Amino acid sequence: MALTDAQQSEIAEAQNNRAETRRATVPALEAMLFQAIPVLDHGFVRVVDYMGDDGAVVQAARVSYGRGTKAVSEDRGLIRYLMRHRHSTPFEMCEIKYHVKLPIFVARQWIRHRTANVNEYSARYSVMDREFYIPEPEQLAAQSSVNRQGRGDVLEGEDAALVLDMLREDATRNYDHYAWMLNEDEEGQALDRGRQGLARELARMNLTLNTYTQWYWKTDLHNLLGFLSLRADSHAQYEIRVYAEAMMKSVAAWVPHCFEAFSDYRMGAATLSAQMLSIVKRMLGGEDVTQETSGLSKREWRELMETLGRGA
Amino acid sequence: MALTDAQQSEIAEAQNNRAETRRATVPALEAMLFQAIPVLDHGFVRVVDYMGDDGAVVQAARVSYGRGTKAVSEDRGLIRYLMRHRHSTPFEMCEIKYHVKLPIFVARQWIRHRTANVNEYSARYSVMDREFYIPEPEQLAAQSSVNRQGRGDVLEGEDAALVLDMLREDATRNYDHYAWMLNEDEEGQALDRGRQGLARELARMNLTLNTYTQWYWKTDLHNLLGFLSLRADSHAQYEIRVYAEAMMKSVAAWVPHCFEAFSDYRMGAATLSAQMLSIVKRMLGGEDVTQETSGLSKREWRELMETLGRGA
Amino acid sequence: MALTDAQQSEIAEAQNNRAETRRATVPALEAMLFQAIPVLDHGFVRVVDYMGDDGAVVQAARVSYGRGTKAVSEDRGLIRYLMRHRHSTPFEMCEIKYHVKLPIFVARQWIRHRTANVNEYSARYSVMDREFYIPEPEQLAAQSSVNRQGRGDVLEGEDAALVLDMLREDATRNYDHYAWMLNEDEEGQALDRGRQGLARELARMNLTLNTYTQWYWKTDLHNLLGFLSLRADSHAQYEIRVYAEAMMKSVAAWVPHCFEAFSDYRMGAATLSAQMLSIVKRMLGGEDVTQETSGLSKREWRELMETLGRGA
Amino acid sequence: MALTDAQQSEIAEAQNNRAETRRATVPALEAMLFQAIPVLDHGFVRVVDYMGDDGAVVQAARVSYGRGTKAVSEDRGLIRYLMRHRHSTPFEMCEIKYHVKLPIFVARQWIRHRTANVNEYSARYSVMDREFYIPEPEQLAAQSSVNRQGRGDVLEGEDAALVLDMLREDATRNYDHYAWMLNEDEEGQALDRGRQGLARELARMNLTLNTYTQWYWKTDLHNLLGFLSLRADSHAQYEIRVYAEAMMKSVAAWVPHCFEAFSDYRMGAATLSAQMLSIVKRMLGGEDVTQETSGLSKREWRELMETLGRGA
Repeated sequence: MALTDAQQSEIAEAQNNRAETRRATVPALEAMLFQAIPVLDHGFVRVVDYMGDDGAVVQAARVSYGRGTKAVSEDRGLIRYLMRHRHSTPFEMCEIKYHVKLPIFVARQWIRHRTANVNEYSARYSVMDREFYIPEPEQLAAQSSVNRQGRGDVLEGEDAALVLDMLREDATRNYDHYAWMLNEDEEGQALDRGRQGLARELARMNLTLNTYTQWYWKTDLHNLLGFLSLRADSHAQYEIRVYAEAMMKSVAAWVPHCFEAFSDYRMGAATLSAQMLSIVKRMLGGEDVTQETSGLSKREWRELMETLGRGA
Repeated sequence: MALTDAQQSEIAEAQNNRAETRRATVPALEAMLFQAIPVLDHGFVRVVDYMGDDGAVVQAARVSYGRGTKAVSEDRGLIRYLMRHRHSTPFEMCEIKYHVKLPIFVARQWIRHRTANVNEYSARYSVMDREFYIPEPEQLAAQSSVNRQGRGDVLEGEDAALVLDMLREDATRNYDHYAWMLNEDEEGQALDRGRQGLARELARMNLTLNTYTQWYWKTDLHNLLGFLSLRADSHAQYEIRVYAEAMMKSVAAWVPHCFEAFSDYRMGAATLSAQMLSIVKRMLGGEDVTQETSGLSKREWRELMETLGRGA
Repeated sequence: MALTDAQQSEIAEAQNNRAETRRATVPALEAMLFQAIPVLDHGFVRVVDYMGDDGAVVQAARVSYGRGTKAVSEDRGLIRYLMRHRHSTPFEMCEIKYHVKLPIFVARQWIRHRTANVNEYSARYSVMDREFYIPEPEQLAAQSSVNRQGRGDVLEGEDAALVLDMLREDATRNYDHYAWMLNEDEEGQALDRGRQGLARELARMNLTLNTYTQWYWKTDLHNLLGFLSLRADSHAQYEIRVYAEAMMKSVAAWVPHCFEAFSDYRMGAATLSAQMLSIVKRMLGGEDVTQETSGLSKREWRELMETLGRGA
Repeated sequence: MALTDAQQSEIAEAQNNRAETRRATVPALEAMLFQAIPVLDHGFVRVVDYMGDDGAVVQAARVSYGRGTKAVSEDRGLIRYLMRHRHSTPFEMCEIKYHVKLPIFVARQWIRHRTANVNEYSARYSVMDREFYIPEPEQLAAQSSVNRQGRGDVLEGEDAALVLDMLREDATRNYDHYAWMLNEDEEGQALDRGRQGLARELARMNLTLNTYTQWYWKTDLHNLLGFLSLRADSHAQYEIRVYAEAMMKSVAAWVPHCFEAFSDYRMGAATLSAQMLSIVKRMLGGEDVTQETSGLSKREWRELMETLGRGA
């Protein structure tokens, strides 16, 4: 991530801003506000605004007139109860807004979460930055042989070097050609006066999917937790998971009780199917259940053994 | 609206709260924060939280790093451009949360706006307040004879008195029976120890639709403006329109540029159909168009004449 | 449920309709189409249209060009895999539309599910039917003493009789007054020519919350299953649960593989929190865990014991 | 568009399928069902399923029990009334599902319409087709000098040839490298046994934004019309507009009354701001209004003159 001087001074100015408010305010999140947390080689996530705190969840659940006068322990208990029993609407009462810089192929996964507000940098209107994602060598994984949408061993040696060269060269050349087709300087004036530049909305099609884009993304806490539970999961693609992990830190700072409940009842929880549950009951009753006697497919049996922390 | 002493002191406490924040802050809205604006006989609307300001719309449209350094006039121009050309996503970047007390039949209209977050006071869990909406005499309108879903003349004399008595007596009696069926005091203890109270989730069905309920309602600026354009319109039922009008004031204080653009391009605007537009062109060309030569139905012709401020 | 002759003949006419289509068609659901399934004393649910079948889920997951040629067993396996791993978008590819008649207080719970399309009978525009929900004696439950939003024992004897009388008399009187205020016959003509009727949009506020309303409600299979998992659950209020149960039958007829997967991985499944999971592991390891040594609150311990089918 | 033989026979098989149904059926749309309408050089749109017809809109607006017995002229009038007065919910009662093949940069615009169900071909799971969009020479437009997100003159001569060569060569080379990195044949076996293929989820990042993807996209009629009103508009980018135009034909076949009302009250309509409306009134009153005396900015004055079909 290389912010320009102009960008850094814009951020610094925003951070220096101070105003008095009657709204719920979270010092731990204020401390992180506007700051760009680096993700991947040129990306970042930064919190640019928020509304509400742990108390706002409790307040909405109680439809109360003020901040409420209950003990902190009662608030925590209520939040845990709401999370455990899927009472999701009180968590919708907190809102957060991020500014994110991310490769286009990651943006395409991310946008599938529809319950959010988005303003993306427009390549019809503006010129894209010359920045592309090139994986770290330790992320250059082979196709998994067991999971059609997963990664296997890390590529090494000459094969790895060739792949990295290709990614770098193709992205660079395509960007160079994009710039040539646009034929414009930063003020939009023709570089070569002898020819017209291609329309931005057309030229962009020559860019590769690892080109970085950026957007403002705003959502409520309930939908954010849904996003994180899928994207911070170990089955998520590494390149989106690192964004989710960076965002987890902002949630922990923002709404610590909600985050704790989320960790216990969602991220760390396991769902057992009707069949799995009945097998656990048999095992607790002393029976030595095997895959064969379980009635589960091999795949589900393996999943159950993993959940229970047992060798398959 | 009669807030209890406990409610008033909760509100006062929230109003006295002060914290320092780096977030965008709007003094004109801060001044209104938490304050209950009376609506109808026992209802209110109060802003309990907000996120963003006019600048946040501009910032998202530009996907900028800081608050932006453009002139106010440029920001205003951009906001007007976005509103005029239906670029709605930047307006989704501001969020507001209201606490509303309202009659159930109004709540049922309101909830049809789905893109919002809602927590309603639960009559399964809690006991409803003894408050019902009784119209002011000047709102006691007869059924319109021309509009199946509109109001005509105001009822007067004995008929009006009879209607008001019925509304008041029926709501009161039904609430009394509700309370009797519940058989519980404020702490949930039986009033009459000799019998069990009916489940709250059942007893509530005896209440009338003018009983007041309350909720926390949160939405983004774009969807709020959509709500207001329908519910502050002269065709909306009076009892929801007064809520929309009260909320308009908070929008004017919060995002004055957006509100101005909304007033010019949405509330004060008129949409002409293809046929209407071609009639206006004929009229501007000097033709004396009548309903007969217009090709419009009588109803649409009347609508056009109203839009153009002409007698039909 | 008492359908008028006119309504019954409209339904019969729709049922007699036959057309040829190239679309996916489900004979078991066609057989139920349009038919009103009675729910509560005057309510019903009836399927009025549908789109897609089990194959449509599979087709969308594979983004295939035709109906697909895979074996039924593979399709079933894929559907189970999608359900187990929360791949929800393929289930959004099926759509169903219901016509429902239901008490207003049930409609108010139901409408909280926002991802659906709704057209409700308008009491601003039309006159409501004279029908109210009166519980069966065996549903007349006392307030639960352990669960603030649940039911306890069934009321009996004189208390029960008094409650039923109140509900019946209050609803009837309020409807009679509503009709008097409207002062109109079925064609909208004044019954008593000497006075004007109150506007429909005002008169309706005198009705009780057990008055029946009706609506067209349309949603996709994924959101329908979300609705059913909450509303067919034993914690849901009885009066909405019976609607969910009636709808379950239509889902079983419509998409049997999806329904089976839903039953196994959602309705019959249990989610264990991080703490609960670690206790189960300790128990499987032979430890005799008690509430005291579990680290769980009494409430969560009781929930875990229920899940595992053990006495607390 | 070059469908493989296997794809064509899958489509033919689906088209040959016939079943009897009681549902509303639209012969004109049945005739188009499954058929791929070519769009751009390799793309297509095809309707794969639908629910409802013009009658379903009317039925929902009336919450009726059957198909209704009103005259066609009354149904048409009601539909026009609903469209004119923004009563949008009855239009949500019809649903349609498309299978679309489209360049990724078009897919990225399209997905911004959030109220739809989508299943996209997964490049994590499968190998992308070797197909890229290369504009026709007459679409190779220069950047507009007046509109930052529009097109100007068509490029000609050597410049045009160079641009087309670049687009073609870069897309082809990048795809070749993508295929080399994957190192797999159609069955997923290594082509070169001596090395491991890069994970599909990584290799895809080397593709250009004009690579074709495909998805199943399903939405209701109201949201479809919203999509079409923006994307079939003359300000939309050509490459998405041609998809919208192809879809317009299916809407005209499917729901002719709704389509007519949409054409009159939405596509062909114009919205006049409060200021514009007051200028039109002055003009109709005989005043010779100029930009200077209008109070409008030059830009808005030009827009108004265009709307009224006058030279600026």
